[in-house]
Amino acid sequence: MKKISIIGISGYSGLELLRLLHNHPDAEIVNVYGTSNTGTLLTEIFPKLIYLPKYAKLIIKPFSSQEIMQTSDVVFFATPAGIAAELATDFIKADFPVVDLSGDFRLQNPLQYEKWYQKSAIHADLLPKADYLLADFDQPKQTYMSNPGCYATATLLTLAPLYLQNLIQLDSVIVDAKSGLSGAGKNLSDSSHFVNVNENVSMYKLNQHQHIPEISNKLKTWHENALPIQFSTSLIPVNRGIFVSTYAKLAERVSFSDVVAAYHQTYDDKYFVRVLGDNRLPDLHRVVGTNFTDIGMSYNELTHTLTVVTVLDNLVKGAAGQAIQNMNHFFGFAENAGLDLVPIL
Amino acid sequence: MKKISIIGISGYSGLELLRLLHNHPDAEIVNVYGTSNTGTLLTEIFPKLIYLPKYAKLIIKPFSSQEIMQTSDVVFFATPAGIAAELATDFIKADFPVVDLSGDFRLQNPLQYEKWYQKSAIHADLLPKADYLLADFDQPKQTYMSNPGCYATATLLTLAPLYLQNLIQLDSVIVDAKSGLSGAGKNLSDSSHFVNVNENVSMYKLNQHQHIPEISNKLKTWHENALPIQFSTSLIPVNRGIFVSTYAKLAERVSFSDVVAAYHQTYDDKYFVRVLGDNRLPDLHRVVGTNFTDIGMSYNELTHTLTVVTVLDNLVKGAAGQAIQNMNHFFGFAENAGLDLVPIL
Amino acid sequence: MKKISIIGISGYSGLELLRLLHNHPDAEIVNVYGTSNTGTLLTEIFPKLIYLPKYAKLIIKPFSSQEIMQTSDVVFFATPAGIAAELATDFIKADFPVVDLSGDFRLQNPLQYEKWYQKSAIHADLLPKADYLLADFDQPKQTYMSNPGCYATATLLTLAPLYLQNLIQLDSVIVDAKSGLSGAGKNLSDSSHFVNVNENVSMYKLNQHQHIPEISNKLKTWHENALPIQFSTSLIPVNRGIFVSTYAKLAERVSFSDVVAAYHQTYDDKYFVRVLGDNRLPDLHRVVGTNFTDIGMSYNELTHTLTVVTVLDNLVKGAAGQAIQNMNHFFGFAENAGLDLVPIL
Amino acid sequence: MKKISIIGISGYSGLELLRLLHNHPDAEIVNVYGTSNTGTLLTEIFPKLIYLPKYAKLIIKPFSSQEIMQTSDVVFFATPAGIAAELATDFIKADFPVVDLSGDFRLQNPLQYEKWYQKSAIHADLLPKADYLLADFDQPKQTYMSNPGCYATATLLTLAPLYLQNLIQLDSVIVDAKSGLSGAGKNLSDSSHFVNVNENVSMYKLNQHQHIPEISNKLKTWHENALPIQFSTSLIPVNRGIFVSTYAKLAERVSFSDVVAAYHQTYDDKYFVRVLGDNRLPDLHRVVGTNFTDIGMSYNELTHTLTVVTVLDNLVKGAAGQAIQNMNHFFGFAENAGLDLVPIL
Repeated sequence: MKKISIIGISGYSGLELLRLLHNHPDAEIVNVYGTSNTGTLLTEIFPKLIYLPKYAKLIIKPFSSQEIMQTSDVVFFATPAGIAAELATDFIKADFPVVDLSGDFRLQNPLQYEKWYQKSAIHADLLPKADYLLADFDQPKQTYMSNPGCYATATLLTLAPLYLQNLIQLDSVIVDAKSGLSGAGKNLSDSSHFVNVNENVSMYKLNQHQHIPEISNKLKTWHENALPIQFSTSLIPVNRGIFVSTYAKLAERVSFSDVVAAYHQTYDDKYFVRVLGDNRLPDLHRVVGTNFTDIGMSYNELTHTLTVVTVLDNLVKGAAGQAIQNMNHFFGFAENAGLDLVPIL
Repeated sequence: MKKISIIGISGYSGLELLRLLHNHPDAEIVNVYGTSNTGTLLTEIFPKLIYLPKYAKLIIKPFSSQEIMQTSDVVFFATPAGIAAELATDFIKADFPVVDLSGDFRLQNPLQYEKWYQKSAIHADLLPKADYLLADFDQPKQTYMSNPGCYATATLLTLAPLYLQNLIQLDSVIVDAKSGLSGAGKNLSDSSHFVNVNENVSMYKLNQHQHIPEISNKLKTWHENALPIQFSTSLIPVNRGIFVSTYAKLAERVSFSDVVAAYHQTYDDKYFVRVLGDNRLPDLHRVVGTNFTDIGMSYNELTHTLTVVTVLDNLVKGAAGQAIQNMNHFFGFAENAGLDLVPIL
Repeated sequence: MKKISIIGISGYSGLELLRLLHNHPDAEIVNVYGTSNTGTLLTEIFPKLIYLPKYAKLIIKPFSSQEIMQTSDVVFFATPAGIAAELATDFIKADFPVVDLSGDFRLQNPLQYEKWYQKSAIHADLLPKADYLLADFDQPKQTYMSNPGCYATATLLTLAPLYLQNLIQLDSVIVDAKSGLSGAGKNLSDSSHFVNVNENVSMYKLNQHQHIPEISNKLKTWHENALPIQFSTSLIPVNRGIFVSTYAKLAERVSFSDVVAAYHQTYDDKYFVRVLGDNRLPDLHRVVGTNFTDIGMSYNELTHTLTVVTVLDNLVKGAAGQAIQNMNHFFGFAENAGLDLVPIL
Repeated sequence: MKKISIIGISGYSGLELLRLLHNHPDAEIVNVYGTSNTGTLLTEIFPKLIYLPKYAKLIIKPFSSQEIMQTSDVVFFATPAGIAAELATDFIKADFPVVDLSGDFRLQNPLQYEKWYQKSAIHADLLPKADYLLADFDQPKQTYMSNPGCYATATLLTLAPLYLQNLIQLDSVIVDAKSGLSGAGKNLSDSSHFVNVNENVSMYKLNQHQHIPEISNKLKTWHENALPIQFSTSLIPVNRGIFVSTYAKLAERVSFSDVVAAYHQTYDDKYFVRVLGDNRLPDLHRVVGTNFTDIGMSYNELTHTLTVVTVLDNLVKGAAGQAIQNMNHFFGFAENAGLDLVPIL
């Protein structure tokens, strides 16, 4: 039974780690850390966890890298941008296993980080110590595991077969992504006020979303001629879920059946990515509450355009679930340990 | 590993049984039965279940009591009103274990059944063969386990300490219950059309809800002078959850601290009922996705009125979860086997 | 054409005044005032108002009582608690017409104000200069018109026939009110974050809501023996609308048909209150976007309990609409001038 | 005061006509017709309209073209596909003014109609008697006014400046449209059940939506080289509103400022289309309840891609509002008569 510490327990990703790890057969949470409410019982902050015996005695502790390394086998960062960059040094130097759900170590290039996150990249020399782990494609080689962003995960899983097998015109890709509100975090702002979100849709951070560079970086590893990606994100009035519509023109001499075959070839042996057949397209309900990514596609002969629809749960596959999947890989557990979830209605 | 058959797999309760039993350590689904789509793979009907290896090969079969008794240790009815009444005879005669989520055997009195369900009670002689099992209070004595209704569960868990310890004026009880739409089932009607439900609240079946008699019957076992209950139900635009506000005047010489003590005394040793202290009141999010019932209370000195707020998930504690809890009791499993769930955001 | 100034233009009530007065035949907005964004075009703050020629040139001005009295015939306060108390002095002294949507002048008794609003009552001597105007019952006699609260309006319109005609047992009244989120204002807090509100219901300010004393005060004018009211408020995940369930036991020798007759007698000549017959109960959709209050009722012979369901739009009848109705009375306009609205789906 | 008859009063478009025409200064509804509930008071079907004196006496009548032409100056069809095709003959032969909100006369080519509507085109010879009236561009020349579809309106208003001024690469256009549920009508189906829609997003009729041909036809009138359009539609969990994201690559030597200028040049003198500046993008709340279409745009230098976001209310601008706008043109009323609406929160 591996022992886990979690830093940043009060956000949505932290809570989701608690939910999922509660039933993990091979790992358990031993300590939780936060910057606020330290010294408080976790169940005071999340009263809905009371009476879960596993969590009944956890106290939110102030950060201590030494304590974490003494009591745990792995630490998860479920923190806002900038925190892991600041606190991870000791773990990296000690080669202590880290799963980082934040964006701090997703970009190896400090200039790229500074441009997209609008923060200075402290400890730029440590960035190469992190592996960017799209869990269905990558296995950890180092001890610092950087978990992809939620939009990036959906977009990359959509594009992988198309780039890897060179099936599309690379300058024709359009990604129109929609997300539920939990993807925007717990911050209070006009844009998260119920009345403003309910019965509304809005596009935000157009061409400026911080997940764009990690998508582009990964695409370049799959296709040397990958171009910048056209990517938009809209907020829809649901709590959980990412729904991505992707459009691209097929490359010459590529048929729709080639595309379908490529998706099956890429994903049929991957447990957590499911390809729908027969032009069927997935909806959010198929995946909410689970670590699955469902992908469906259709082709328009008149416009020579492929449409791919991809759905995942931003807090599971897009955050805590994929983090556990990466941890499972690291420790050699079954890939779906703790993640054998049925979608909730 | 006990083997389970489920009849009526296509409704919300049937699907919820699939979700919850998927992770049960001591029981597994071996066969599923339905009236429509027989011969079809379950994953054709619920495509979101594809790739769950446990369910990948289940085919929806036409009902056969003999086959069920040969292949299974217990059968669940997750059927609309009237089906279990028709199909249960063989099981009862053979003393074969049944967990019935429908209302067919909740009322022992055939006249009462006919009045509230507006159906004739076939096999009236078999009604006494069923135990009405409010799982946190009752243990199965016979093999036919009748699972309480969702509203009835919330209302009874609210009222139990008050009736058992004679703490309130019995003619003063008002129960104002609100439910999410899954409680109304999958039937298509104007009242389940999205546009009519969204941004709306409506009260329905006032004084006529079929859960009223099972509530009254149970209350009479707790207090011989129990009176008819004033009970209303409203639909609110959420998918899951029951939120019950109950009002009552305290009996003479009863103080609020007596009431709080009674709730703790009644529930502190019951895993699935959680009493909140300090006048705190629960919201739906505390329990959605789980088998917990959370109860909070407050007292108004000026009006001598106690307010109790009770929440549960209508598909878990109000249906499939409590059914599994009852099965766990029957087979002597841990009470929370398969039900060790953390609320989903 | 009467000229209107509005103070506190940026809140929900201020915006709703803009929406409704836009089509008023006898009155028009000439100036708007605010504490923030002064000097800014109104359409900068509410971009959705751009191109409405009537509002295109309005600039948010800093408060000036002199300017308001020189340019306008009436001023509306659509301000948070405490502002009107501070700024209204000049208007009162000059007997200048004011419609105050806030709670500052609803309670004549300064001690009562301080207890329920937890603010000190400045200018306590001026409180009696205000008329509390439940628009369907009261006509303005003085120039300071205090508009009832949204919950208070729904509750008082529910109880009026019962108290005025002495039809119920006064100690048996239970009011269970639910409101959409706009009723809680634009403030950012965890309790208005989309993720916390959506798919949730929560009760708040139980026995402590500041609308309780204005309800009690009015009830006492209708029935000398009126007792403190048992009143609860819950938030439901909709933008607009108040849904109130009220329960009471009938007084001796009172029949349900007496009750129905009393409602019709009270309201059949009131344009904005509609009584439903035949035990039908209203839902929110009947009134959203309008100034109507719809009331339905049913009686339970077994529990001797009357249930009354009342719905209104908290921003129209519960705020801006009733304020305009009061202004219409004051100036002798048609009661429904500017308020002849059809419910929006 | 022109007199209006409405056929098909019980759908969402019919009800919206009632809402909007209630305040029209120059026209009034005199008769309403339906296929069901004939002989019934309109207020029985829509109880929320009771006490609106204008509508209090309207009875739903069985269709009679003679009666309509004798009592009215214009008739509106707010009927499902196929009805107007069947019933319009008499009106067309008599040159009696018709505003048809359905799709029956939008396509002049009977083969195209049969392909996309999957119905046979009866009275194919009459199709050319209808004008397709995108109200912000077209004036009625004949008496049969065919109102564009909701998606078509949003898409065409988005693309007009780009096609008319030849600003984009015509093979690069991608339209990703999202609609609230009222756009799908009142039909009961699994896809309109609250539980299936709420907390969900789904794409439907991909490459098969019946609004595609009317879009393509109109585009060809704007640009002779217009190609088939790549167009997708998704359902989002809101009642009202269409949100369209459109992507296109700019033509050679066209700059983003050319594009912005073209939008202003096209729309600055059109009351009901509003162009946002400064890369701002509109959300649904700006337009819900109104006849406005709001359009914002931004350009990505890296991908050479223009993004345009367009929003409108599917029941107003997308149906009843544009129909009234067309009628206003026909009778020479002010364009915004009856349509001077402020967005509802």
